[in-house]
Amino acid sequence: HRKGAVGNIRKLIFKTHPADLAWVFRSLTPIERKDIFEIIAQTELVADFLSELDTSIMVELVEDLSPEFMAKVVTRMASDDAADLLEALPNDIAVEIRRHMQVDDRHEVEELLKYDPETAGGLMSTDFMYLDEDLTVEEAIRKVQKRSEEKEMVFYLYITHGDGQLSGVLSLRELLLHPPHRKLKNIMNRNVISVTTDTDQEEVAHVVSQYNLLAVPVVDATYKLVGIVTVDDVIDVIREEATEDFLQMAGAGREREILLKPLYQKILLRAPWLFASWIGGVTAMFIINSFQYELQKVLALASFIPIIAGMGGNIATQSSTIVVRGLATGRINMQHFFPVVIKEFLVGIVLGAVFGTLLGFLAHFKYADPLYLGVVVGISVFAVMTMAATVGTIVPLILKRLNIDAAIATGPFITTSIDILGVSLFFMVAKTLLEL
Amino acid sequence: HRKGAVGNIRKLIFKTHPADLAWVFRSLTPIERKDIFEIIAQTELVADFLSELDTSIMVELVEDLSPEFMAKVVTRMASDDAADLLEALPNDIAVEIRRHMQVDDRHEVEELLKYDPETAGGLMSTDFMYLDEDLTVEEAIRKVQKRSEEKEMVFYLYITHGDGQLSGVLSLRELLLHPPHRKLKNIMNRNVISVTTDTDQEEVAHVVSQYNLLAVPVVDATYKLVGIVTVDDVIDVIREEATEDFLQMAGAGREREILLKPLYQKILLRAPWLFASWIGGVTAMFIINSFQYELQKVLALASFIPIIAGMGGNIATQSSTIVVRGLATGRINMQHFFPVVIKEFLVGIVLGAVFGTLLGFLAHFKYADPLYLGVVVGISVFAVMTMAATVGTIVPLILKRLNIDAAIATGPFITTSIDILGVSLFFMVAKTLLEL
Repeated sequence: HRKGAVGNIRKLIFKTHPADLAWVFRSLTPIERKDIFEIIAQTELVADFLSELDTSIMVELVEDLSPEFMAKVVTRMASDDAADLLEALPNDIAVEIRRHMQVDDRHEVEELLKYDPETAGGLMSTDFMYLDEDLTVEEAIRKVQKRSEEKEMVFYLYITHGDGQLSGVLSLRELLLHPPHRKLKNIMNRNVISVTTDTDQEEVAHVVSQYNLLAVPVVDATYKLVGIVTVDDVIDVIREEATEDFLQMAGAGREREILLKPLYQKILLRAPWLFASWIGGVTAMFIINSFQYELQKVLALASFIPIIAGMGGNIATQSSTIVVRGLATGRINMQHFFPVVIKEFLVGIVLGAVFGTLLGFLAHFKYADPLYLGVVVGISVFAVMTMAATVGTIVPLILKRLNIDAAIATGPFITTSIDILGVSLFFMVAKTLLEL
Repeated sequence: HRKGAVGNIRKLIFKTHPADLAWVFRSLTPIERKDIFEIIAQTELVADFLSELDTSIMVELVEDLSPEFMAKVVTRMASDDAADLLEALPNDIAVEIRRHMQVDDRHEVEELLKYDPETAGGLMSTDFMYLDEDLTVEEAIRKVQKRSEEKEMVFYLYITHGDGQLSGVLSLRELLLHPPHRKLKNIMNRNVISVTTDTDQEEVAHVVSQYNLLAVPVVDATYKLVGIVTVDDVIDVIREEATEDFLQMAGAGREREILLKPLYQKILLRAPWLFASWIGGVTAMFIINSFQYELQKVLALASFIPIIAGMGGNIATQSSTIVVRGLATGRINMQHFFPVVIKEFLVGIVLGAVFGTLLGFLAHFKYADPLYLGVVVGISVFAVMTMAATVGTIVPLILKRLNIDAAIATGPFITTSIDILGVSLFFMVAKTLLEL
């Protein structure tokens, strides 16, 4: 019976796209994963499957396999996926696997491992088609027919001269439009957009999406063509950067696979940010405590603490999110610094006036005594919201200018700072206007 | 002099990629935009340029041009971009432009305008290459040479039979590998992944990125091939959906181009969410007011309001952000409902215990009286954080099950609800344990 079940699972595996298999794996328990992977590991699909898998699941599965077997699997993977896999594994295992690889395959992967994984060098694949500019159209077509099988993105043909220096690009379609004996250098497009191995992955993603490219060539310092980054990897970068920004803005670390991590890691990733907000809360506690005398005289002040902190925190979150996302999508650049701050300041003034007035009237009619409580509350909401919108705008812009990830600024940091500033301001306004 | 300046700007425009021009336009004032656009409008570039521009800037510029001129420009645009432009314009202007278009161009665009812009039908281009399955390789190559100029993504050749029903796909590279007289139907890949005109754009993006496609064919109810969605449009969808989620999670509406909107619109987009949080704050005010007697007896309780609301709000934001992003990236699906809730509940218990204990000790040593204040504060932080992590997880999951956008749940709604729940719980714990 067992044998029959395995046979059926094998059939199912062969009918399923490796990307779908990887998707299903997220929903399985670790034991189920091991069982099914044992079957996948015996098929040709294993290399494709591993390239599609979430890193943490992949590492968990691969650690049990022999280095000899993994060396064969890694050799069958696209060079960029192979490098990503080796990078994710614990170092001793990765070294063992590399030791069992053939010299030239190992060399190719080790070249890629030299680059920072968040740069074009770390993203690029070295399996690409390039043709010397002195070839004719006929020769080029023959090369495509013969050699393109295992290459990525053969729709763009990169043209080189000399020692592999990038000189142009030609699409496969354009190649077909020219007579057989014309030389590539006479028909190629010389205006080729490229990036260098150390270009940051966000910039690579920007270039590919800005110019609607399917791939971008990567050159080294001597303008030698060393790889290409394809649009599917760019989509992954865009998704991953967005996920990291989401998590950072919520103060939940920047580990994209947090959902797949064991409980203690989930807790450790989130604790530091909560600790920062704990410190902020304790500060607010001391501040309120220092106004004990005023609070004693006008107990009603305590009722307004949540709304003042909340309105401030919420408008600051709006402003900082708009700015952080604007920076990420390029809708804000640093020349916009002042116009953006001024507009958010104005938004804060108008919304602060509206919600301050509303609360002021409500407070006035609810609490007859002290007479000016409504005024105090209204002014405080107005001032806190104006300040919060401005701070929420300025902080991410300053971080960006200091080359720090602006997403850190939103979430816990901003809301906690606004709690502290808001509460201080409120009690000072109360103390002054109510003459306490 | 004026003429010389215009000449120089013309040269600069011709040397700049239309996407870069569109990028620069974001930093210009409305008057500068008009001036430079007047020059662009006289060049061949105008159609490409308008396709790259942000919608709000495009509408502002186009409104001044004659419908006759715009009809010519729209005709030169890719059909999907043309439809997007007409959709963004005020209806009376769009109708005028369409009236001036040639019958067949108008028909093509009007077909596209029938679809919901957030579906595959709304995204697709109708300028694609398709070949009947009975053609030979030689005939196919000739068709590509002759007809592919104005088509999108000619690297995938879609193969049809009968009345244009999709039957397979062939890459341009594969076409070159076969002998000239073989028929396409004998070499095509029959396993073609497609979407239908009413497939939601998020699902289209999922399909393209999941299977690493450069384009996906769109079929109608009779499986007739009616268009293709290319990967560059998918990248735009992924970016736009992420931006909308960011804004929604911050309670700042879901207008992606909020930065380009005039001040009053910025304010109107943000006010409703702040009003919701205002209502929440007023509710918290009434709740605290109802515990006036207890507060009078133990004034120190007021000092802990910000930290209790803040720790609850922050852990809830973490949980809900992880869940919302997990749903968007497919790392959580609805079968995960209970495991996810239980894990977040456990995270809440552990972190609640840690930060509750910390605050309990601090409160105990700071306030000698009443004796159990430390215990009250510790238990409250523990309970609020556990509850907040759980609520922050459950609410987006429930919204998703009800087919409501889960991103709405985070930000103001969650933090304001936690404020109310947290403050109530804190005062009730205090009242009970301190026997007030």
